[in-house]
Parts: sequence; C-alpha cells; structure tokens
Amino acid sequence: MSMSSAAISTFEITLTALSKLLDKAEAFAAAKKFDAANMLASRLAPDMFALARQVQVACDLAKFGAARLAGIDPPKFEDNETTMDELLARVKKTLEYIETVPAAALEGSETRDIRIPLRDRTVEFKGLPFLQAWALPNFFFHYVTAYNLLRHNGVDIGKRDFLGS
Amino acid sequence: MSMSSAAISTFEITLTALSKLLDKAEAFAAAKKFDAANMLASRLAPDMFALARQVQVACDLAKFGAARLAGIDPPKFEDNETTMDELLARVKKTLEYIETVPAAALEGSETRDIRIPLRDRTVEFKGLPFLQAWALPNFFFHYVTAYNLLRHNGVDIGKRDFLGS
Repeated sequence: MSMSSAAISTFEITLTALSKLLDKAEAFAAAKKFDAANMLASRLAPDMFALARQVQVACDLAKFGAARLAGIDPPKFEDNETTMDELLARVKKTLEYIETVPAAALEGSETRDIRIPLRDRTVEFKGLPFLQAWALPNFFFHYVTAYNLLRHNGVDIGKRDFLGS
Repeated sequence: MSMSSAAISTFEITLTALSKLLDKAEAFAAAKKFDAANMLASRLAPDMFALARQVQVACDLAKFGAARLAGIDPPKFEDNETTMDELLARVKKTLEYIETVPAAALEGSETRDIRIPLRDRTVEFKGLPFLQAWALPNFFFHYVTAYNLLRHNGVDIGKRDFLGS
C-alpha cells in the first residue's frame, strides 16, 4: 500500500467527482432558471462554512496534503470565487496541480515530519498519521458537507455521484 | 503503511469520535428538555437516510470493512435502534467487534478478493481499492452526514469533536 495511492489517487478520484457534482448543480440551476451562485452561500447551520468555502477548503486540503507529503510548496490559490463556474475552475486547477506531484516524491513520506500552522496552534505529525488522521478525514469532511449542501438544495445527485469512478 | 492502520485505526478513532458526538447530542436534548430520540428521524433531504440510519450504516461499513479485509464473517446486528442510548450502544458494540479483529489478519489483504452484494448488483474489488475507493469514502460519507445532522439540529460540536483524538 503506497502513500501515493492512499493520498494522490483518493484526492484525484474525489475532486473529479466533486467537479461533476458542481456541473450537476449548475445544470439544476439552469433548468430551474435561478442563478447557480445562490447555492454558494448555503449553510447547514449558521456557524458552519457555506458551500463555496467548503469547496475551497476541500481543494486546499488536497493541495496541501499532496504537497506536504511530497515535501514541496504548493501554489497559492486566492479564495475569491463568487460564481459556480469559478468554483468549478478552482476544483479543476487543484486537480491539475495534484497531477503534477510525482508519485516518487511521496515514497517514504510515512515518516516525514509535517507541521501544520493553524490560527491558534501548530499541529505536528509524521506523514502517515498526517494522512490518516488529518488530511483524509478533513478532506472528506468538507467534501461530504458540500455534497450534503447540494442535496439539501435539491440537486439530483446520489451515492454513485459521490463515490465517482 | 499497513492495511490494519489504514482500516482498523481509522474506524476505531472515528467510531470513538461518533460515540462522543452522540453523547453530546444526548446532553443537548437533556439541557433543552426534549426527547433525544426526536433527532433520530432528522434528514437533510427527504430522500436521504435519517440520522439513526446514517449511524447504523456507518457502523456496518466499519464492521464489514474490517471483517472483509480480514477474511472473516462479522456478527449480524439488527437495525432496531429507536433511542439515542440504543444508537450509542450500536456504536459501542461495533467498536468492540472491530477491536477483536487482529491486525495480523489484515496482512496481505491489499490483494484479497472482496465481493460486495448490493441490492441490484455485486461489486468486486481487490482489498486495497475496496478500502480506498469504497469502505473509507462510504464510511466517511455516513459519519460526516451524521455530524452534519447533529449540527443542523443545533448540537454544540465542532471540527475537533469530528476528528476525535
């Protein structure tokens, strides 16, 4: 079991699925004749992130997850998306970046030292627990919440769309 | 990176976190003086599973995930929980079962043949893609949705509760 398949493949499959979910959300808005951007501000609770932010954070967790395991600095993406098309573009440029991270760079990353600066503290991990107990659960958290927000808004998607290929 | 740490550890950490989320939901109901069972029927969309079913399915994905990788038959648990205490007990007996699956039984399970009977088809995997593309994403799907339902119902939980240890 390689770190590359555990990390990169999961991010690729899931971001590809996310991109298709947002396509369906856009088609749903077009069919119902409302502005797809209306969904971007949708929240499941008033103190949870809205849809746009859930997608941005999922993208960043994949980008930083791959880069930190590879020991490289990822590009910075601004959080300035205000339309569904822009949000889709964010997912696509994240996917394109992740595909540039070579599998070989993740070899041996199980034991790499990883430091994550948060607002109020710094979290330190070895590569394997970073991936298993931080990057993947956080990534799925924001991805599933984005899915749930789209379902809550009436978009016709299901478990197979969620899982992707 | 071992299959046991990727599977068993993730299920253990996450089900332990789920058990604490349900404890907080029960305390919230007690403080607000309503029956905690009222939350079990809560849904994010009318054609999504309610909270009780999300928890049952998350438990079963962990139980079957561990057992299938180990090549053993897990115990059958009835889906008959109608109170928050019963739902908590379901999580706890699932955890207890998973802790009985020896790490050694998962050695080499990357290439084990795994067949999953669904309502309308049978899905076949090798052990590694079963874990990465099926068991973990599906498990997190139901776990995050349970978390989102509790947040949507006003339970005071956050990302640290979600992540657990």
